[in-house]
Amino acid sequence: MTLDTVLTRIDDDLDAALDRLMTLLRIPSISTDPAYKDDCQKAADWLVADLAALGVKAEARPTPGHPMVVGHVGDGAPHVLFYGHYDVQPVDPLELWTRDPFDPAIEDTANGKVIRGRGTADDKGQLMTFVEACRAWKAVHGDWPCKITFLFEGEEESGSPSLIPFLKGNADELSQPDIALICDTSMFNRQTPAITTMLRGLLGEEITITGPDKDLHSGYFGGAAMNPIRALSRIIAALHDENGRVTVPGFYDGVAELPDAIKAQWEALGFDADAFLGDVGLNTPAGEAGRSVLEQVWARPTCEVNGITGGYTGDGFKTVLPSKASAKISFRLVGQQDPHAIRKSFRAMVQDLLPPDCKVEFHEHGASPASVMATDNPAFEAARQALSDEWPNDAAFLGSGGSIPIAGYFKDYLGLDSMLIGFGLEDDQLHSPNEKYDLASFHKGIRSWARVLDAIR
Amino acid sequence: MTLDTVLTRIDDDLDAALDRLMTLLRIPSISTDPAYKDDCQKAADWLVADLAALGVKAEARPTPGHPMVVGHVGDGAPHVLFYGHYDVQPVDPLELWTRDPFDPAIEDTANGKVIRGRGTADDKGQLMTFVEACRAWKAVHGDWPCKITFLFEGEEESGSPSLIPFLKGNADELSQPDIALICDTSMFNRQTPAITTMLRGLLGEEITITGPDKDLHSGYFGGAAMNPIRALSRIIAALHDENGRVTVPGFYDGVAELPDAIKAQWEALGFDADAFLGDVGLNTPAGEAGRSVLEQVWARPTCEVNGITGGYTGDGFKTVLPSKASAKISFRLVGQQDPHAIRKSFRAMVQDLLPPDCKVEFHEHGASPASVMATDNPAFEAARQALSDEWPNDAAFLGSGGSIPIAGYFKDYLGLDSMLIGFGLEDDQLHSPNEKYDLASFHKGIRSWARVLDAIR
Repeated sequence: MTLDTVLTRIDDDLDAALDRLMTLLRIPSISTDPAYKDDCQKAADWLVADLAALGVKAEARPTPGHPMVVGHVGDGAPHVLFYGHYDVQPVDPLELWTRDPFDPAIEDTANGKVIRGRGTADDKGQLMTFVEACRAWKAVHGDWPCKITFLFEGEEESGSPSLIPFLKGNADELSQPDIALICDTSMFNRQTPAITTMLRGLLGEEITITGPDKDLHSGYFGGAAMNPIRALSRIIAALHDENGRVTVPGFYDGVAELPDAIKAQWEALGFDADAFLGDVGLNTPAGEAGRSVLEQVWARPTCEVNGITGGYTGDGFKTVLPSKASAKISFRLVGQQDPHAIRKSFRAMVQDLLPPDCKVEFHEHGASPASVMATDNPAFEAARQALSDEWPNDAAFLGSGGSIPIAGYFKDYLGLDSMLIGFGLEDDQLHSPNEKYDLASFHKGIRSWARVLDAIR
Repeated sequence: MTLDTVLTRIDDDLDAALDRLMTLLRIPSISTDPAYKDDCQKAADWLVADLAALGVKAEARPTPGHPMVVGHVGDGAPHVLFYGHYDVQPVDPLELWTRDPFDPAIEDTANGKVIRGRGTADDKGQLMTFVEACRAWKAVHGDWPCKITFLFEGEEESGSPSLIPFLKGNADELSQPDIALICDTSMFNRQTPAITTMLRGLLGEEITITGPDKDLHSGYFGGAAMNPIRALSRIIAALHDENGRVTVPGFYDGVAELPDAIKAQWEALGFDADAFLGDVGLNTPAGEAGRSVLEQVWARPTCEVNGITGGYTGDGFKTVLPSKASAKISFRLVGQQDPHAIRKSFRAMVQDLLPPDCKVEFHEHGASPASVMATDNPAFEAARQALSDEWPNDAAFLGSGGSIPIAGYFKDYLGLDSMLIGFGLEDDQLHSPNEKYDLASFHKGIRSWARVLDAIR
C-alpha cells in the first residue's frame, strides 16, 4: 500500500469526515462559561467514542475543570503526541453572526468553500484533520503509522488552568513520546503551508513612579515639584535608540542572527510588508532599522508600552500635578534571551534614569523565554518536504510574534520538543463572529497529516 | 480725627462686627447647588441692607444666575472698586466637619482663636474686613475716605458664568473707578502681610496621537508598528531640557528677570523651601536650575503634564499595541508671554517630533496670559507701607503660581488695574471641611483696610 492509496481514501471519505466534524461542531463546548460545562463533557465523550471506534484506548480524564481526553495506540517509532483542543470561544456578539454559530454549514465564498461556525478553525476543524488522517491510514493499512498518544484539552480558551497540573501529574505517561505535534496554528497564506518554529517569549513589567506624596495643584507647585509623568516619559523615551533598538543593557544577549536557510525561506515567501502595515493604517516599519518587517515581528525582540496612565484623564481639564504615573511595559523575547536577566537589567536602568525625588515600584506580569523549535531534528525537514508536496508552494519554517504557551509547557513539564503545523488562515475570524475554516484547509490538512506521518515514521 | 481713632473704633466694635459676620455665615449660600438658590438671594439681600445702613446706594442686581450686589458711595480720589464674593463652596463630606458648617463659632486652637465655618475665609470673612473698615471710618469721620464702588459676586465658586456678561453690560458704570481692590488672597504667613502682584497665566492643550488605526496585538505587530505611547513619551520627554527649562521655541519671549526690589523682598521673606517641598514628600526643586523655589512657582513659566493615558490601564496585563495615546499639558505663563504664540509654537514642535505614521490632534483648553499688576502705581507702595505698619513683618509684593481670573477680567472688560490684598492663611482649609479664618486675620484685616484706605486716598 502506498501513500497515494491513503490520499485517495481521504478524498473518497471527505463527506463522511465533514459529517463527523459537523457533529462535533454542533456541541457548544464553550469552556469559559459554566453554563456549557455539560457540553464540554459531551464533546470530550464524543472524541473518546470516535477514537475508540478507531481502536484507540481512549478516555476522558477528569480535571478540576473540563476533562482531558487521552488516548494511546500503535507502536513503532517515532512515538508522537498529538495535541489539539475541543473547547471553543464564546460567541458574543451573537447578532453579528450570519448564522447560528453552532449550526455549522458549508458556504461558498469568493475564496472558495468554507465551513462556517464556532470552532471550525479554532480548533475542532484542525484537531479533526489529524484524526481523519489516522482514520484513513488505519482503513488502508489496517494499522498505525507509528505509536501515537492523543491529548485533547478542553480549557485552552479559558487559560488552561488544569493543564500544567495534569502534565505534571501524568508526566510518566505523557513524556514517553519523542515529539509533540500541535495543530493550532496557521499557514503563511492559502498557497503556502508552514511549520511554526520560533515563538517569541514575553516579559511583562508594570512600573509606578511616585513624585510628590499627594496630588498637587499645578499652579502652586508647578515648577518646583517633580512631575512623575515627566519622569516616566523620560524613561519610556530612553528605551529605544534612534535606530529602534532597545537600549536596556544586555538586552540583545542571546539574540542570534537568523540562519541563512531560514532567511532564504522567508525571502521566498513574497511577504507583502506594505499590505501588512497598510491594513492597519501604517506604512513605515517602526522596529530596528535595516531589518525586514518579517524579521521585526518574528525574529527580533521588542519593547512595547501596552498602557500608560497618570493624573487626570477624564473629560475637560484639571490642573493637577499628580503624585503617581504608571506604565505597563512588555518585552517580546527571541532566541536565548533570559527574561529574568532582562527584568533585572530593565529595573536597574529605570532606577538609573529616575530623577531626584521620584520613587519607583515594580510589579511583574509573567516571564517566558522564546520557544525555538529543534529544527535540527530531521522530522522538521521531512515534514516540510511532505507539506511542500501537498500545497502549491513550498512550506516554510515560520516565526510567530505571539506566544503559544503549550509548546513551552511540553518542553518544561514533559521534556518534549514540539512541531507546530496548522492550516488556519489569517481571515478565519478566530474568537470573532463568523469564524470559518476553509474546506481546502480541512481536506488538504487531512492529506497533509497523512504525508507528514508517512514522512517522519 | 486721626487714623488711630478709626483703629480704636475697630477694636471697640469687634464683637459687633463678629456678630454681623456670623449672621452672614449662617446663610448657606452654596452657589453651585440649585437647592440653595434662595439662600444666595438672601445673602445678597443681607449685604444690600448692611451697605444701605451705612448710607451706600446699593442693590442686588439680577443675573441669569445669582444676583450681583452693586453699591456706590462717597466722593473724592481715588475712586476704588472693592470686589469680594458672598457665595461659598459645598460642604461635602459633611461627616468630616467637627461642627455644623453653617453654625459658625469662635474656637481656640494652638495658633490662637479662629472663626470656624464654611465661607469664613473664602470669602465672607475677607469681604467683611473691608465693609467693617468702611463702617468704622464712617462712624469716626461721618463720611468716606474716597469714592467707593462695591461689587459682590454670588457665583465665584461655580465658575462665574454671569460675571463677564455683567461687566460688559455695566461697563460704563463699573469702569469709572481708578483701581480695583480684591480681597480673596492670602498673607505670606501669620506675621507677613502681602499684596499679590503677579498671577501666572494658564495655557491648556490636549494632544492625542494616533499610530495604527486600530488597537493591535503586540505579539503580531510589535516591532513593526509604531506605538503611539512611545511617540507621546518622546514628545513629553523633549519638552524640558537638562536644566529644567521648557524647550518650546520662543517660550521665554516676554519673560523678564525679577526686578531687584522684588527679589530683595522675597529674599527677606525667609521662605522655607525645604519645608514647602518636604510637606509633599519632596526635597529637590524640579524647575529651572539656578532659580529659587519661590521664583520657580511665582515668577517662572512652567510646562506640566496634568494627565496621560493610552492602551490598557486596568488591573493585570493586556498585550495591546494601542491605536491612540493622549496627554493633557498645561503651561503656566508669566510676564508678557503670549499664550496664542506659545500654543502655535508648541503645536509646531509636536508636529516636528512626530515619528512617521503618527498623526496628532490638538484640543485647546483655555489660554490666559499672566496678570502682572501695575506696581508702579503709587497706591501699591502706599498700601505696602500701610500693611507693614499693622503686622509684625513688612509686607511684600508676592507672586502666585495659580490663576485668579477676576484681575484679568477687570483689566480686559473694565480697563482696571487690580490690587489683591487678603488675610487668608495656608491652613484655612479653603473648599475643605472645617474651613476657618483666624480671628486675627479678621480683626487685623479690618485694621489693615483702614490703614490702606488712609494711605492711598
